Amino acid sequence: MATAAPLRILGDWGTSNLRLWLVADDTVIDRRDGAGLAAMEPGESPASVFVDRVAQWTDAYGPLPALLCGMVGANIGWRQTPYAECPAGAADLAARLTRVEARSGPVAIVPGVACRSPIGGPDVMRGEETQLVGAAAMAGTDDNGEQLFCLPGTHSKWAAMAGGAIHRFQTVMTGELFAVLSRHSILLDRTPAEATVAGFDAGVARVRAAGAGALPALLFEVRSRRLREGMMMDEATGFLSGLLIGAELAGIAAGRADGAIGAVTIIGSPSLAQHYARALPHFGGEGKMIDGDAAVRAGLSLIAAQAMMEMSV
Amino acid sequence: MATAAPLRILGDWGTSNLRLWLVADDTVIDRRDGAGLAAMEPGESPASVFVDRVAQWTDAYGPLPALLCGMVGANIGWRQTPYAECPAGAADLAARLTRVEARSGPVAIVPGVACRSPIGGPDVMRGEETQLVGAAAMAGTDDNGEQLFCLPGTHSKWAAMAGGAIHRFQTVMTGELFAVLSRHSILLDRTPAEATVAGFDAGVARVRAAGAGALPALLFEVRSRRLREGMMMDEATGFLSGLLIGAELAGIAAGRADGAIGAVTIIGSPSLAQHYARALPHFGGEGKMIDGDAAVRAGLSLIAAQAMMEMSV
Repeated sequence: MATAAPLRILGDWGTSNLRLWLVADDTVIDRRDGAGLAAMEPGESPASVFVDRVAQWTDAYGPLPALLCGMVGANIGWRQTPYAECPAGAADLAARLTRVEARSGPVAIVPGVACRSPIGGPDVMRGEETQLVGAAAMAGTDDNGEQLFCLPGTHSKWAAMAGGAIHRFQTVMTGELFAVLSRHSILLDRTPAEATVAGFDAGVARVRAAGAGALPALLFEVRSRRLREGMMMDEATGFLSGLLIGAELAGIAAGRADGAIGAVTIIGSPSLAQHYARALPHFGGEGKMIDGDAAVRAGLSLIAAQAMMEMSV
Repeated sequence: MATAAPLRILGDWGTSNLRLWLVADDTVIDRRDGAGLAAMEPGESPASVFVDRVAQWTDAYGPLPALLCGMVGANIGWRQTPYAECPAGAADLAARLTRVEARSGPVAIVPGVACRSPIGGPDVMRGEETQLVGAAAMAGTDDNGEQLFCLPGTHSKWAAMAGGAIHRFQTVMTGELFAVLSRHSILLDRTPAEATVAGFDAGVARVRAAGAGALPALLFEVRSRRLREGMMMDEATGFLSGLLIGAELAGIAAGRADGAIGAVTIIGSPSLAQHYARALPHFGGEGKMIDGDAAVRAGLSLIAAQAMMEMSV
């Protein structure tokens, strides 16, 4: 077996989810899914959880090198890693890996990425950088012109990429705003329903007409339309989602040279990405989608390949 | 005692607070403060709570007429009252009182007010209409030109008034956004601290420079400035408050003919009103303050005077 591709573990370990793949080159041999860092029990450490999750693999094959990205590199994770500054591609990330030794073998953790955002503030990401470099490789990026990528989510990331590297990015709080407003505010009486498409479309159209600067006022319409216009809870849930995603897109469009978003590659789960693709044309945008799971695996493979000399056991 | 002014009860009964005054004309004889509708125990009804709270007064003086405003007229209150449409002044509110009989005497509940907001959506208020007509009487409003009033709070209200009547208004979700984001989001780690003035000023300046349309992106800076610039929790708390109040003021300024807020009367507690007065000059505004308690009492007195024929026992 001396000529076989070396086995290694690739992983994305975030706040909510842990996804681990056992791979030989680009071939996935096995997979483990589990709960994220937020679900750790008292007395558990990321090291003990990891060693336990990969025990079947190390029992079979001996110590295995691992490459992990995500919040595992934050202060709530295994070891806090520094941020790489933009521009950052796979080689930059590979050159800034943080290494820890575990009973399962050597573990390398991908750094987060930091930049000065297009609106002039400090910005950070952790985990999305790996999806971005993977998606850029899948989509193909030019060395000359920048291409726009979007990762919708709790903290949506919009990244301008060229030559496979993240040049700058902007975080928008859309997903977390939806979560806290639907669960903890008066807007949906804390009982959000399945969102209707009609409600979503109405929310997008509303914020496009009134402008994203009116968002804190428009949010109250989720309530006033229920009180005054008989809007039902499922439509109101869609309306809130449409207001927030519409405001996100309006803000991004405002930062583009011609006020239109243009072509954008959306990375994520199909269900969420479809909402963005649906709203994009209202802001001069057109989306194509890349699966988030495939993107993170592609990114980890790229970074691992760049770091191969150190990674091999 | 036949020539003495008749006694009556005035009250503001909201979600969080109950304030009751025993008055003879405009003279306050006694006062009771208590918890609002959200604090009612199982088995209690607004009627039983009210009769209990005023028992000392009715024991001493016999049945007393009462006039109540606030969420006591909502579906969570004593009796759901219809909305009066704008324009609405004290006489309009007095003409649309909802009457219930209680063991303590006849009770009249002030209607809420509804309008089509300046940004074109349905809007509602319940309780603030009474503060507004009271504040307008205290400040003096012209029959010709409209004057701007602001009630900062969980759901801030901005009202254009003329001749003592509410002509139109706009709700902005500022206070509730601050509450849910500071308690339930990742921004302040769910442990908001006392806000610093420096942080508040920085937040106001930031949203003024970047534009209110960038708010969903700027919110994430509360986190990234802590991670990247060492912003402390008390400064970050002020920064979040400044971003949200600044976005509210920017949205109001954008709706004014010349893009400047101009003169505005701020009704509320001095601590909150001072934050608004501090931020207003950045948006072409200048605030003078009226105490919220005094305004609601003045409004109730005005409405009671208009309804006196029916109110007298």
